[in-house]
Amino acid sequence: MKKLSLNLGKNSYTIFIGAGILGSREIKKTISSFKFTKTFLLTNTTVARLYKAKIKKHFPQASLIIIPDGEKYKNSRTMDKIYNALAKGRADRKSGLIALGGGVVGDMGGFAAASFMRGIPYIQIPTTLLSQVDSSVGGKTGIDLPSGKNLVGAFYQPRAVFIDTDFLKTLPKREFLCGLAEVIKYGMIWDKKFFDYLKNSTNEILKCKTSVLEKIIHTSCTIKAKVVEKDEKESNLRAILNFGHTMGHAAETLSGFSSIHHGEAVAMGMVYAAFLSEKKKLCPKGTAVALTTLLKKIGLPVNLPRFSKARYAKTIALDKKAKADTITYVTIKQIGKAHLVDLKPHDIVRYL
Amino acid sequence: MKKLSLNLGKNSYTIFIGAGILGSREIKKTISSFKFTKTFLLTNTTVARLYKAKIKKHFPQASLIIIPDGEKYKNSRTMDKIYNALAKGRADRKSGLIALGGGVVGDMGGFAAASFMRGIPYIQIPTTLLSQVDSSVGGKTGIDLPSGKNLVGAFYQPRAVFIDTDFLKTLPKREFLCGLAEVIKYGMIWDKKFFDYLKNSTNEILKCKTSVLEKIIHTSCTIKAKVVEKDEKESNLRAILNFGHTMGHAAETLSGFSSIHHGEAVAMGMVYAAFLSEKKKLCPKGTAVALTTLLKKIGLPVNLPRFSKARYAKTIALDKKAKADTITYVTIKQIGKAHLVDLKPHDIVRYL
Repeated sequence: MKKLSLNLGKNSYTIFIGAGILGSREIKKTISSFKFTKTFLLTNTTVARLYKAKIKKHFPQASLIIIPDGEKYKNSRTMDKIYNALAKGRADRKSGLIALGGGVVGDMGGFAAASFMRGIPYIQIPTTLLSQVDSSVGGKTGIDLPSGKNLVGAFYQPRAVFIDTDFLKTLPKREFLCGLAEVIKYGMIWDKKFFDYLKNSTNEILKCKTSVLEKIIHTSCTIKAKVVEKDEKESNLRAILNFGHTMGHAAETLSGFSSIHHGEAVAMGMVYAAFLSEKKKLCPKGTAVALTTLLKKIGLPVNLPRFSKARYAKTIALDKKAKADTITYVTIKQIGKAHLVDLKPHDIVRYL
Repeated sequence: MKKLSLNLGKNSYTIFIGAGILGSREIKKTISSFKFTKTFLLTNTTVARLYKAKIKKHFPQASLIIIPDGEKYKNSRTMDKIYNALAKGRADRKSGLIALGGGVVGDMGGFAAASFMRGIPYIQIPTTLLSQVDSSVGGKTGIDLPSGKNLVGAFYQPRAVFIDTDFLKTLPKREFLCGLAEVIKYGMIWDKKFFDYLKNSTNEILKCKTSVLEKIIHTSCTIKAKVVEKDEKESNLRAILNFGHTMGHAAETLSGFSSIHHGEAVAMGMVYAAFLSEKKKLCPKGTAVALTTLLKKIGLPVNLPRFSKARYAKTIALDKKAKADTITYVTIKQIGKAHLVDLKPHDIVRYL
């Protein structure tokens, strides 16, 4: 088991990473140290079906709250169901909420915990690679609005995060690859050595070798933690985590969110950002090719879906992160080093 | 104009109190110093009707968001309307939300600001006496659930609070008296001199004399601020603000929330708490009579509605603040001094 401690003052917590850790004594001790008056476990129909026995075994006392599976349920109606289940189960301010599932369950569970009685403690058990490397750090929780993703929410830290890599065994391959897109992102924006490690370990990664999974999850969370921590001093540094996301989000929106998955969109967006960085002479030649080669080897798409420059530009301009006319766009200086540039939407789409 | 500065580190803000202050240069300067990219003004149908001209004059650029009037609309459905109006109006992270209205508008506006894009700045302009002396300090925001009031929300501080006592001119007398119940509460739990001042100024208060209103609002907010500030060191001190609320809430719940208003319930609950304190020999004899005399002079009810001890006890046990079997009940040591005691529900209802 690997551990990562996040130092956030009184909001500090530890991420535990390993295969089959849920049954371990250390995890049990950690949970009981929180002294929850009652425990509620939030999950979705798919995870509940796959892990019925595991949930019963490890959380026998927990009241289950099961929501439908899918981003389209990440809304206030589902939140109401969670709130009402907590109220009906007589949750008090010291009751604990465990969010067991992917990004949607984690985001909603986190927001429910942040807002029920103005804040109750919660634990994240992310079951997808994407949520393990993305939602475990940063405290972002929330729901979608009809007009955009994650438009409502809170910054709220869990008491602990348990990443049991055994959950990845039942994860559809396509979702696993989506998680890898974010893993590769961390190499691109922060750590050339990690990028090289990923390049040299493709086979073990795709075979889900436990020690390799532990390492890439641990490194990804460590990088995200460093960026988030530094952001308090270096304002807006956190924006580098959006590498690949500007065009990626636009591709998702233009495709109607169904045909392209988020990680795939990020993969395409990263390639485009690397290409743009080269064209603008911000990074050495060959950067985009190196990235493309790794993504292809992993099995991720690299070409953005075809829509007109005008439509991409318009979609980017509607992005939540847009300020007036410009977008803080993440370019690459070299592999392992990101660089923020303020660009207008039509400048960003120029190289399509 | 009176001012009260709340020192909450980077969440510090100022409360401005006075008659007709909305038009003043200082308020205008304060608002423009926040440099909102856009301004949204949340209010309800009643306030919008009464103050159409005033709103247009003082906030000509603001996009109006108007919600129905009443506690029964303080739910997630109305929140969705607010969120969607913000999204439709292209609110960004630096857009400001002004909540102009009573407690419901303030609580919902505060929670909308706390959660939209995980937090946008907001200003409170409370228009009822109750919200002026209660919601201006403490940062509590939120909505109700079918199973209980304020069960969902956030702690979130406004950038400023503007208390224009002119709004009280159109406040129904019954609502004005409800606010006075909370004002008297501050005297009871914290400040004997203030209690005496209220006793000696009943006529001016009921005539809404501007200087007297300014003083009682300023003193009430000052006391609440002291209690909330001290609470960080002296854990749970804040609970004294619930003086009169345990039995008051129960009376509201048992009456179905319609016949008794919150301030009236608090008045009755305070009398009962003073009576219980005397019976338990926690405070000098005559305390309950002194309180009762003032409340009657003001025109507030002093007798709890008749329900059985068993029903009161059961309702108390369901209170959000109940921990296992006991309630932190606020008793009185003497006028101006509250004292917390852990009691079981059947001990609390004994003197009915």
